[in-house]
Amino acid sequence: MIVVADALKFIDEHTGLGPKIKKSLADVYGHVLAENVFTPMNMPPFRQSSMDGYALRWSDNKTYKMVGEVQAGAAKNTALQHGDAVRIFTGARVPDEADTVIIQEHTSRDEDVLNIDKMPVMGSNIRPVGEQVQLGDLVLEEGKFLNEAAIGFLAGLGFEEIPVYEPPKVGILVTGNELQQPGKPLEEGQIYESNAITLQMALKRTGINGVTIERVGDDLKETIKAVEKLLKNSDLVLISGGISVGDYDYVQEALQKNGVQEVFYKVNQKPGKPLWFGTQGKKIVFALPGNPGSSLTCFYVYVWPALRKLRGVKSYQNKEKTATLQTTIKNPFGKVLFLKATVSKNEAKLMGVQASSMLKSFATCNALLIVPAEIEEMNPGEEIKYIALDQL
Amino acid sequence: MIVVADALKFIDEHTGLGPKIKKSLADVYGHVLAENVFTPMNMPPFRQSSMDGYALRWSDNKTYKMVGEVQAGAAKNTALQHGDAVRIFTGARVPDEADTVIIQEHTSRDEDVLNIDKMPVMGSNIRPVGEQVQLGDLVLEEGKFLNEAAIGFLAGLGFEEIPVYEPPKVGILVTGNELQQPGKPLEEGQIYESNAITLQMALKRTGINGVTIERVGDDLKETIKAVEKLLKNSDLVLISGGISVGDYDYVQEALQKNGVQEVFYKVNQKPGKPLWFGTQGKKIVFALPGNPGSSLTCFYVYVWPALRKLRGVKSYQNKEKTATLQTTIKNPFGKVLFLKATVSKNEAKLMGVQASSMLKSFATCNALLIVPAEIEEMNPGEEIKYIALDQL
Repeated sequence: MIVVADALKFIDEHTGLGPKIKKSLADVYGHVLAENVFTPMNMPPFRQSSMDGYALRWSDNKTYKMVGEVQAGAAKNTALQHGDAVRIFTGARVPDEADTVIIQEHTSRDEDVLNIDKMPVMGSNIRPVGEQVQLGDLVLEEGKFLNEAAIGFLAGLGFEEIPVYEPPKVGILVTGNELQQPGKPLEEGQIYESNAITLQMALKRTGINGVTIERVGDDLKETIKAVEKLLKNSDLVLISGGISVGDYDYVQEALQKNGVQEVFYKVNQKPGKPLWFGTQGKKIVFALPGNPGSSLTCFYVYVWPALRKLRGVKSYQNKEKTATLQTTIKNPFGKVLFLKATVSKNEAKLMGVQASSMLKSFATCNALLIVPAEIEEMNPGEEIKYIALDQL
Repeated sequence: MIVVADALKFIDEHTGLGPKIKKSLADVYGHVLAENVFTPMNMPPFRQSSMDGYALRWSDNKTYKMVGEVQAGAAKNTALQHGDAVRIFTGARVPDEADTVIIQEHTSRDEDVLNIDKMPVMGSNIRPVGEQVQLGDLVLEEGKFLNEAAIGFLAGLGFEEIPVYEPPKVGILVTGNELQQPGKPLEEGQIYESNAITLQMALKRTGINGVTIERVGDDLKETIKAVEKLLKNSDLVLISGGISVGDYDYVQEALQKNGVQEVFYKVNQKPGKPLWFGTQGKKIVFALPGNPGSSLTCFYVYVWPALRKLRGVKSYQNKEKTATLQTTIKNPFGKVLFLKATVSKNEAKLMGVQASSMLKSFATCNALLIVPAEIEEMNPGEEIKYIALDQL
């Protein structure tokens, strides 16, 4: 049995980056940039009016002569003499000879004559070429998480596709004779299987779709075959159940038979003690406890950071936040406790039911409190660390 | 021009819930429950062993006679007399006559004889029927956001499908002669169009896929037709650009021609002042400013809460958090400012560039600071409200 910090360290040491791949911008939401990005253009690419108004050459004149107009998107340069003005719109190209844009609210029109009510300082309301970024600038760095703003920014610079780290292909194996699929009648002694869909949805949340799911009973041959199949097609395999010391827990043997090397088995924590982690080459395998709550706890604590690292996220470890505890916590176990709680306005309230055999509390909590192994009791008012689970 | 609080209130008043629909559990991630859910079964459905060990009738005996074993998933009851024990595994059905499970670590075996090292109290290691939930219990309430844990919990109760609020169908209209698609060469006076993909990805983040996108130049007839088409197929229409007072901004007229009623136009804020909001029956329309930064600001401040409300989320308004400001902010504008910033460990640092014509700062910020209209200056050390934008 190892401690939580070592489990995290060993997983980290055995988890590498996915391969680089070019993908269309529309398909990279939630991916991570695999290379530094330099802009292939100036932004703005031409002198741009930032307002609706009139472009002209600055002077003390009180009137200008209207000689045309420039719509946004118009390519042609509009020639302009001293004393001339052109109507111009936000985003439009400022004529080469103009040096100032006056907003329409500071003018009045008398047919072809533009009356200046209040002349701004020279250069006003013109965005210079390259004001925001200049050709060749480093605009986004390798490791950048691609959210809506980053993708929009790259689209604005004309990118159609971009190098990203390929997200891992994930396989899920669910084991257990007692498991029935929802929708089918439950025989005596059976329960409905829920770990596969829970893990599948947790993966979906991190942007990983198209997960392969295999289900086997407590049967060694079947388990060996299923592990082999999943290893062939996956970078990361999650196994649910079959990993404890029961006589019908075949997962360890099946992993061994498939050449998966054990890195560790059992962590000094509650819930989630019988966590197993191993590797086959660059592929990593988590065998998670079968109890739904323990399984999801291990997912958040260990699989989440590994997934982020595989995908190229720079700060891939869970961010531990701090809240003020509102309840008493006893820890006579000498283990790290991961406790379901709600955190609101920095106050942490423990959920009433912590049992790991169902997801009832997990369905309504938004935080996993972390109680260190060496702390026997924590009281209201004390600061406690937690992993945030909620979504915006 | 109205104030931010009124804009939020008016949008709220005109935004309703989507229709109820039954969907398969695998398809409801990010959806919201449309009805209270009562469990159709007890959980556990039978007396379940919570450990690997031996089931028996509690007594002072130091030895028991082994009469069989119960695997997880076995349906048949195993008959048991006083003095008998059966091998049992985690999750397996405890024989009807047994009242206690002793963990295997507290026993030793001598062929058919089980030696008791340490007898637990009667009833130990057995989960009673309905311990977690009882047939007919209200287990999740209408309005519950369906994350991985909620979906797994429902699967564990045997649900295959569940009533949810149908997410809105969204249409996006992008207007502007100056806009070119990424990948094509940029003519003089043109810029690359990025608002459609930015909004599409922001929608994807909230779980809305399959958005319809239309693009038109600055042309009234085209704009009227595109608005008509989008209104026919969408519950929510987002329009980018064409809403200011320029002579070539045809969006307002096109909305009017399509029977969209204006609720408000212009909000006392920076950026994002020329925001327009209207309705056609139950459909709602946001005409967002064309500047990418202003557009995304309005999306986060106004469209985000509306989307949550349309989807049935109970606390749909943006949660305003508080951080300690690290920089000075001047607000000579008498407007509410929405400022891009990074918040880390409760410290808010303003991004250097706040210009709204590009998404450079948005691509790396994780918070939108809110400066009230009546506050002219804020200084380091002051508390400032913000909307969090980052992801777990």
